[in-house]
Amino acid sequence: MNAFLDRLRSAREPVLMLAIRSSRTADVVRIAAATGHHAVMIDLEHSTMSLDVAASLAATAADLGLFAFARVPEREYGAIGRLLDGGVGGIIAPRVETAAEAATIARACRFAPRGQRSQLATVPQFGLRPTPAAQLNQALDDATVVQLLIETPAGVANAAAIAAVDGVDMLGFGANDFTAEIGAPGDFGDPRVTRAVETLASAAHRRGKLLMVGGIGDPARLRELDQPGVCPLRLTGTDTDMLYAGAAARAERFTKNG
Amino acid sequence: MNAFLDRLRSAREPVLMLAIRSSRTADVVRIAAATGHHAVMIDLEHSTMSLDVAASLAATAADLGLFAFARVPEREYGAIGRLLDGGVGGIIAPRVETAAEAATIARACRFAPRGQRSQLATVPQFGLRPTPAAQLNQALDDATVVQLLIETPAGVANAAAIAAVDGVDMLGFGANDFTAEIGAPGDFGDPRVTRAVETLASAAHRRGKLLMVGGIGDPARLRELDQPGVCPLRLTGTDTDMLYAGAAARAERFTKNG
Amino acid sequence: MNAFLDRLRSAREPVLMLAIRSSRTADVVRIAAATGHHAVMIDLEHSTMSLDVAASLAATAADLGLFAFARVPEREYGAIGRLLDGGVGGIIAPRVETAAEAATIARACRFAPRGQRSQLATVPQFGLRPTPAAQLNQALDDATVVQLLIETPAGVANAAAIAAVDGVDMLGFGANDFTAEIGAPGDFGDPRVTRAVETLASAAHRRGKLLMVGGIGDPARLRELDQPGVCPLRLTGTDTDMLYAGAAARAERFTKNG
Amino acid sequence: MNAFLDRLRSAREPVLMLAIRSSRTADVVRIAAATGHHAVMIDLEHSTMSLDVAASLAATAADLGLFAFARVPEREYGAIGRLLDGGVGGIIAPRVETAAEAATIARACRFAPRGQRSQLATVPQFGLRPTPAAQLNQALDDATVVQLLIETPAGVANAAAIAAVDGVDMLGFGANDFTAEIGAPGDFGDPRVTRAVETLASAAHRRGKLLMVGGIGDPARLRELDQPGVCPLRLTGTDTDMLYAGAAARAERFTKNG
Amino acid sequence: MNAFLDRLRSAREPVLMLAIRSSRTADVVRIAAATGHHAVMIDLEHSTMSLDVAASLAATAADLGLFAFARVPEREYGAIGRLLDGGVGGIIAPRVETAAEAATIARACRFAPRGQRSQLATVPQFGLRPTPAAQLNQALDDATVVQLLIETPAGVANAAAIAAVDGVDMLGFGANDFTAEIGAPGDFGDPRVTRAVETLASAAHRRGKLLMVGGIGDPARLRELDQPGVCPLRLTGTDTDMLYAGAAARAERFTKNG
Amino acid sequence: MNAFLDRLRSAREPVLMLAIRSSRTADVVRIAAATGHHAVMIDLEHSTMSLDVAASLAATAADLGLFAFARVPEREYGAIGRLLDGGVGGIIAPRVETAAEAATIARACRFAPRGQRSQLATVPQFGLRPTPAAQLNQALDDATVVQLLIETPAGVANAAAIAAVDGVDMLGFGANDFTAEIGAPGDFGDPRVTRAVETLASAAHRRGKLLMVGGIGDPARLRELDQPGVCPLRLTGTDTDMLYAGAAARAERFTKNG
Repeated sequence: MNAFLDRLRSAREPVLMLAIRSSRTADVVRIAAATGHHAVMIDLEHSTMSLDVAASLAATAADLGLFAFARVPEREYGAIGRLLDGGVGGIIAPRVETAAEAATIARACRFAPRGQRSQLATVPQFGLRPTPAAQLNQALDDATVVQLLIETPAGVANAAAIAAVDGVDMLGFGANDFTAEIGAPGDFGDPRVTRAVETLASAAHRRGKLLMVGGIGDPARLRELDQPGVCPLRLTGTDTDMLYAGAAARAERFTKNG
Repeated sequence: MNAFLDRLRSAREPVLMLAIRSSRTADVVRIAAATGHHAVMIDLEHSTMSLDVAASLAATAADLGLFAFARVPEREYGAIGRLLDGGVGGIIAPRVETAAEAATIARACRFAPRGQRSQLATVPQFGLRPTPAAQLNQALDDATVVQLLIETPAGVANAAAIAAVDGVDMLGFGANDFTAEIGAPGDFGDPRVTRAVETLASAAHRRGKLLMVGGIGDPARLRELDQPGVCPLRLTGTDTDMLYAGAAARAERFTKNG
Repeated sequence: MNAFLDRLRSAREPVLMLAIRSSRTADVVRIAAATGHHAVMIDLEHSTMSLDVAASLAATAADLGLFAFARVPEREYGAIGRLLDGGVGGIIAPRVETAAEAATIARACRFAPRGQRSQLATVPQFGLRPTPAAQLNQALDDATVVQLLIETPAGVANAAAIAAVDGVDMLGFGANDFTAEIGAPGDFGDPRVTRAVETLASAAHRRGKLLMVGGIGDPARLRELDQPGVCPLRLTGTDTDMLYAGAAARAERFTKNG
Repeated sequence: MNAFLDRLRSAREPVLMLAIRSSRTADVVRIAAATGHHAVMIDLEHSTMSLDVAASLAATAADLGLFAFARVPEREYGAIGRLLDGGVGGIIAPRVETAAEAATIARACRFAPRGQRSQLATVPQFGLRPTPAAQLNQALDDATVVQLLIETPAGVANAAAIAAVDGVDMLGFGANDFTAEIGAPGDFGDPRVTRAVETLASAAHRRGKLLMVGGIGDPARLRELDQPGVCPLRLTGTDTDMLYAGAAARAERFTKNG
Repeated sequence: MNAFLDRLRSAREPVLMLAIRSSRTADVVRIAAATGHHAVMIDLEHSTMSLDVAASLAATAADLGLFAFARVPEREYGAIGRLLDGGVGGIIAPRVETAAEAATIARACRFAPRGQRSQLATVPQFGLRPTPAAQLNQALDDATVVQLLIETPAGVANAAAIAAVDGVDMLGFGANDFTAEIGAPGDFGDPRVTRAVETLASAAHRRGKLLMVGGIGDPARLRELDQPGVCPLRLTGTDTDMLYAGAAARAERFTKNG
Repeated sequence: MNAFLDRLRSAREPVLMLAIRSSRTADVVRIAAATGHHAVMIDLEHSTMSLDVAASLAATAADLGLFAFARVPEREYGAIGRLLDGGVGGIIAPRVETAAEAATIARACRFAPRGQRSQLATVPQFGLRPTPAAQLNQALDDATVVQLLIETPAGVANAAAIAAVDGVDMLGFGANDFTAEIGAPGDFGDPRVTRAVETLASAAHRRGKLLMVGGIGDPARLRELDQPGVCPLRLTGTDTDMLYAGAAARAERFTKNG
């Protein structure tokens, strides 16, 4: 019933997502839309962006038809509800290792009885129109996507239990942290990466859920890891990197041809 | 010894409180004062407002003679001290279910030996004048009001123990969340609401503490729930709703008479 | 060729506009949309709002299908281009009294050869996609609406010349300032008001332009002033007033029924 | 009829004013109050502070019983009304050299018929309560203080004409700029300084207005310049300098005694 | 005596400058430095960035050894001094057409007797250490670079007079606006462009000043325009465009290889 | 291998640190540098400063050659990584009482395998240049300083175990909170203070780590507490206090000499 999850399930083409760390204006969101992205990930784990800015960017993304995830800082439970109330469409929670942690996050994202998201009456998605809980809660629960990042061997080991948690929609494989944890930082060809993805994809698939493979920028390697359960949501990069690459390319052009 | 609690104990008229979610300038605080409110509740649970803005609004409220509560996000322990240091008069903590949770919050709000609020020497209430702990701590402890929201059946079940916690001044009944939890979202006439309020009022009363009934906008229903222990602190509404209502009324006026 | 002007020309119903002074988040824009408004006026003349916030609100308004005017501070020429570049749809310039002043503002809003708006290649309306001037300029010029406020007898006296200025789309009658200037502050029934509106409406009509009557909140009085040239763009009020009215109503409700 | 001007006229003790450049929170205003200051000057000429911050600091100052001037940037006419609307009590305009410039500024600060400050209905000083122009305008005009800085020989030469301008309440002698202009930067003992102050004091006195001598930090020199027309408003310093002095003193203490 | 002008005079390689419009954090400045840029241009003409942010970015640029220009909005005289006081190294003033306009800007950038920049005692470049005017003024005047943009045929016609103005260090040719003005938007091969650059280069050269050719991104065309008086300061692009290009490239990569 | 720790180990003179609570612009950092400080402590425990501002101040400090600590709020685990990613050099964690708490904080500050700081590729210290984990992680781990505040008898009792935790570089004795906890607020001469410092210094020394004695402003008392393990890092004071002291001194000067 969630449009974005439906898209991920049925897409034959990559669904593109741009991560935001350095930007503070909505320019980056408009650029994401204009360059063919379908989603943004506002990265609060690796930036010092305020929640007010994050909510504003997310709301603009939604206005433009993009799905807006927020990656929340570790263990900041309170931020989850605040961001959802502010118009964020989905939560990406880092470093989940157990079903208990998974349940805590999932429950923060769903209203009673499935969870314990705190009741409110007005949200950006409804134009701040006061709306009865009986109507609002179901609609928001349906619209919200919960993705949990599995970034450690411990998390992979618990994949089946984590995927089984009610309210979890997607798993995400965090290749950067995973390879660092196994002592092979950045070596995405390591067979343990392949096996971890297999384990996670299978766990997700069995529960009718999806796996996103994140942190790998090489399309060929991503194709190798494609399998049932893996969805085509692709992180194309971070605004910081894109700006760096653009600045470097322009500088080189003028230096070489100066 | 706390002036606001004294007012709540002795008031025969409603004591009015306005909740703030959408505003970021002090205009809303001045409007609260000019329209006869006695308190504001800065809602950090359901907004993405920054702490800097929250502290600024709270300090202005105090300058104008209003009592300023901040409703803190769930499980953000660190925010409590920061807000109190910034001039917030009272803390409203959501979703308290056990005496242990209550004690954690109460201790965050009181200096040693009653609690473990971190020592500082300068606060807005004292004009940032360096003040010895021996003088500052007692004054701030007296001035601070701690309200714990009971929003679930589990919390109601533990009402007596929660009310007994040292440093807790008030309980608050969260009607919105409570009715959602019991599967009757928004049905404030439900007898379980009546019973919950009775339980909480009685628990508070026995400890010489107060209960605020929140989330119910109908004065008649509030009158029915009045009883020993219940104080007349009334949440008149949220800035977001008030702005919505005002905009809708003006639009209708021009549309109908246009 | 401008969609909003077309709407104003063909509308049989009031076209509603909400003014923004106190708000700093986009909540007010969503509320405007949800309550049936078709436009917002971001009031930089009577607020201390930053241009960054103004541009953000305007861009959100456009995303939601609302037309976004910015009322610029007097004599701040530089702000006009910055706001237009940031996504504002229309400029409302206060206290215009001569054709020369009118021309200065109109030229700031149009690219060469009609004006001297500074060339750029990327704007929010085009998703920040680099766009050749040959394509961008015409589109932006068409999309931009320039409204000049006539708020003084001197301005009324020069109405014909002002209305004749190329690049001016609308006149606005500023009833508040006009009545203050003539020594009858707030007396919108004064016959000089009627005559001023007639003069302005006639001047606008002769040039195929429109007149908005602003500052009058009484629909009946507005109907009396309706005539050829007058368009049905209605300022329903300011966020500040709407919030004040809402807070007062809620306070009264609880006080009377407390 | 203006309370602050009355105080300046009748004070036998210095009336202390603290200038704000580096601060962005209201801490500096509370510190000003707690250390015996009676006024603050928010310096927008020599800082990049936003108008929103300036208005917020000014409103807090007023709440605490301090008079709040804003020194506006040169030639930013539009900022004057925005700041006054935001709660600033007085305007200090730099580098005024002619009666025409003086009249432009004075008129921006007064409502019709004395000036052309744009009409509004809600201001912080009135709790944002909608107030009829007939009542609001007189009260705000009375409460507003207009001080013009004379910082050049040209300005001194025109002192009589400038002081005669309706709506001007005070002149200010800018010793720093004046001595720089005469080629003796920082030499406040220069006889041309004495003569300039005599000219300005006399011009002010003849019109029943006041002169503040600014930029001179030496109380002895200030006493020498005391004469009819000179008021005891003293700029004690700027937050930047005070912070610098405090940091240097502390560093020295630990270094010497380390 | 100005280090940056010396570099421009002696450089055999392009000196690279990155323009900033979308960014609000210093990330962009660090990226500029890391990618080999030597200067940044903070574009306040085509953005809604606040002065506080602009000053912060400029100060960081200086800390990193980059020269920081601010392009100021048209006709915002007051912003010039505020930006220089906040740590901006150079001012780029758009659309200068006459020697009188040139002189107004140049005088705003220099202390007396060369200009009328308002005296202050503490600036970021000196660590906010209070510094006597006799020492501060000369150092700041030497460090400040004033560049005037000639963007119209009228400006080109007055090139000699503009270049002769004391306090002007550089002319800048604005190719985008110039080609729009002559009815050939974006046609940088137009012979009128060649002639305008010749006129400006010659005017600058005769006065020992420099010309920057801006708005042309093609190194080959820039080489054609190289001649005595033209300096190798190259605008590599704007953060907005760089981010757009980076996002588009990444999206294409994943789409093609997805 | 850490330059700042090396300096602390070899310094014969006090190493000065200034705490920041009230400031929001980098002026305070420049003042710290200009007055001979070597470090700043951005105090997020006792202020409402945003992470964005904190990171900006820290990055400027690093640009100027100062070491930048952030004191994080209690129990806000997620803030640690965000601040480090934003350019903070060291973390000061308040109220650590057990080795388990110490390990949690230390692991948040170190990359795998020593800890679980989340992997990223671009940081301000490297100019946001994408850098392989194999290179980045070691460099950042070396550069990061972790200081744990022991502020309670319970913490002192566990000093040996806390000092033994891998990844902890320094202990800090919090004299203000400690004396409040033992019922002698502000009595830094209490023999329990002496004993606590001895215990902590000894525990640190045995592990090759350092102890900073904080909260005591009297150099003589600090000298008494000097002993092996104690490093000469001195907190000279807080910006708030320095501003207060400066404002009070200036006010007194003008009042006495007025």
